[in-house]
Amino acid sequence: MNSAIKTPVYRILDSHSLVSLLDGLDAVRPQLGGRMEEWNVREVGDGNLNQVFIVEGPTGSVCVKQALPYVRAAGPSWPMPPERAFFERSYYQWVAPHVGAAVPRVHHYDPELFCIVMERLSPHIILRQGLIAGRRYPLVARDVGAFIARACFFTSDFGLPLERKMRGVAQFAGNTPLMRITVDLVFADPYVASPRNRHTSPQLDEIVADLRRDGPLKVAACRFGRKFLNEPQALLHGDLHSGSVMVTAEDSRVIDPEFAFFGPIGFDLGAFLGNLLLSWYSQPGHATAGDDRCAHQAWILDQADAFWQAFRETFLALWNSGAAAGDAFPPALFGAGEEAAALEAARSAFVDEMFADMLGYAACKMIRRILGFAHVLDFDGIADAGRRAQCESGALAMARLLLTQPRQFSAMRDVLDAVPRQAR
Amino acid sequence: MNSAIKTPVYRILDSHSLVSLLDGLDAVRPQLGGRMEEWNVREVGDGNLNQVFIVEGPTGSVCVKQALPYVRAAGPSWPMPPERAFFERSYYQWVAPHVGAAVPRVHHYDPELFCIVMERLSPHIILRQGLIAGRRYPLVARDVGAFIARACFFTSDFGLPLERKMRGVAQFAGNTPLMRITVDLVFADPYVASPRNRHTSPQLDEIVADLRRDGPLKVAACRFGRKFLNEPQALLHGDLHSGSVMVTAEDSRVIDPEFAFFGPIGFDLGAFLGNLLLSWYSQPGHATAGDDRCAHQAWILDQADAFWQAFRETFLALWNSGAAAGDAFPPALFGAGEEAAALEAARSAFVDEMFADMLGYAACKMIRRILGFAHVLDFDGIADAGRRAQCESGALAMARLLLTQPRQFSAMRDVLDAVPRQAR
Repeated sequence: MNSAIKTPVYRILDSHSLVSLLDGLDAVRPQLGGRMEEWNVREVGDGNLNQVFIVEGPTGSVCVKQALPYVRAAGPSWPMPPERAFFERSYYQWVAPHVGAAVPRVHHYDPELFCIVMERLSPHIILRQGLIAGRRYPLVARDVGAFIARACFFTSDFGLPLERKMRGVAQFAGNTPLMRITVDLVFADPYVASPRNRHTSPQLDEIVADLRRDGPLKVAACRFGRKFLNEPQALLHGDLHSGSVMVTAEDSRVIDPEFAFFGPIGFDLGAFLGNLLLSWYSQPGHATAGDDRCAHQAWILDQADAFWQAFRETFLALWNSGAAAGDAFPPALFGAGEEAAALEAARSAFVDEMFADMLGYAACKMIRRILGFAHVLDFDGIADAGRRAQCESGALAMARLLLTQPRQFSAMRDVLDAVPRQAR
Repeated sequence: MNSAIKTPVYRILDSHSLVSLLDGLDAVRPQLGGRMEEWNVREVGDGNLNQVFIVEGPTGSVCVKQALPYVRAAGPSWPMPPERAFFERSYYQWVAPHVGAAVPRVHHYDPELFCIVMERLSPHIILRQGLIAGRRYPLVARDVGAFIARACFFTSDFGLPLERKMRGVAQFAGNTPLMRITVDLVFADPYVASPRNRHTSPQLDEIVADLRRDGPLKVAACRFGRKFLNEPQALLHGDLHSGSVMVTAEDSRVIDPEFAFFGPIGFDLGAFLGNLLLSWYSQPGHATAGDDRCAHQAWILDQADAFWQAFRETFLALWNSGAAAGDAFPPALFGAGEEAAALEAARSAFVDEMFADMLGYAACKMIRRILGFAHVLDFDGIADAGRRAQCESGALAMARLLLTQPRQFSAMRDVLDAVPRQAR
């Protein structure tokens, strides 16, 4: 697999070669309509890893995502096998039957060019951009919560017999280059001086130095890092931040699952929650004379709550329904009455564990976006460094509290109460 | 893979075809010496799954283990793919560099006949038989404890970079037929009425019925069952009971790792501890006029303690040494002083988690050996059903306590104190 990029077949697509490729695909040509000369191609990739094209024809459009053989954000000096496109496509295959249209439809996958031709989402925008602009999407938090519940339940030992699940574990165990990114950039680099790191300097220098001397904090990050590699509870998206969700007022779609692997469900939950919290802390940096963003902040915290409740309700409803066809907690072992009550309590306890994981992973994700390699536009879009540092330091304080005082947070209410306090 | 048994190459070996096979192997012929006509073959398999031959020649001997395409203890009506021989051989390959001679040397593996030609262990006997006979082996508990520590440490995220470990996870994820046995026979069947179960009846009928109505007990078993499938901490032997250890007074060897998979370390620990406890409870059944077995019982409890201490010390020593080359808790993240103390505390906490897992899995293993499909000679060898039932009921009471009152057991001392009490 790893030598595939050296074969002459793989080439980095440009507008011209892309159009030729699509013209040869019976599954795609009719979507675009007309003749290839009439098709318009734009490169729109803004992520860290790939190139993304929008191709428009007379009758429709498609999106094409090609994995590059290096990290786009770093350039060819940081090689990265393009096989991640295979795992992205495989993730869609695994979850699509369970999440309906919450993921884009895949029209074609090219295993040699490592590119996916898929549904173009329009007029959707990236949720992160909407949040920065102060827009509200009434459905997205509940939609993403329910999405994670369904995608994870049906790929876990609650939803699958072990034979099926182990096939998945084996398949996605091949996605190590992307796991390596997470292990290094999320769980290690931010806690030491590394040339890949950056932070708002000198404003945060002291806070950062202090954080990097915090033994209990680093132990907590390491615990979640070890867990990331050691608990294949379900097939995860692996990078489910607000840049991996596209929205309109009526629709929510999850994209970019190239980091997919079998891991702890709290990791996907934490990615989304952590990025909601980053958005909350960044809001003062986007305030204008006409909008202090306080109402937007309140709305964001409501979304954090709605997100968790939707996940919790959906997951438990699936578990209580006939959908539990896996080997974990086989319902046939439990009779009525006290036995059923014991099972009910166990389910509730398992959901509480996912809650605790969510908070830990949210905190890890928040820290890495402020001290690590890849930052977020929520903060980077704040031009004034002093203002930006103030927003970031609030988020860091909250993340440290989540990691070092987990017992203070037994319910979402505790989180919602603590956030404004940490902002000072 | 699963169709391999239908190819004409695979055949069930008998003495004649085995000798022909060995005569063709340059790696084996010299071990035996002389000519094939002089070789003596005995089938000695007493396990549940395979056939095992001892082949003796003029200058030496070898052991040959062939996986049958069904469960030997059940017959051809319970098919079982012979690929488990591949996983057994692979386990030896993975751990041999780290455990020295604690596993037998493999001379040859035949991937079509699914048979392993290996070192014959002599004059070793199966530890279980020694324990039943009231013999003592001063080294075995410490040896097995240190063996698990080394085999697990070096195949975990403490010892391996994630890329290596994930290759192992993917490889052993194929051993699902054997995982299926464990999931069904250890974590499910014993807790319901199943035609595969048996128990000493009618003496234990009431206890068994009561146990199968115990909601919290079943929840605990399910929690450990889910964990079995969901925590690939390290490469496990997968069936490390006292029938998988061969001993002399000076030497201890671990055999039969065909259940190998990446799982929670406590599962291997619990298998060994649970079988020591089963042996303890069975001793009155083997008492004679000249030996009430009380001294032997005391010795067994000492071994349980020595086993755990050897594991704990070896594991922590490896972790504290330069051997920690994996991605979990990277030492480079931690400075001296308070940071080092935080890391030290985290290591201790992780060992405590393995201790708790060990007790849970020990209990599950004890229950399945008394109520499930496959029993142990420790009890089955007690001819008097009333006496046997009394021994078994003590073991069941201890197992239930371990599973339902885990907080009573924070150190091995708590276990050693509780065992005699549960025997009544």
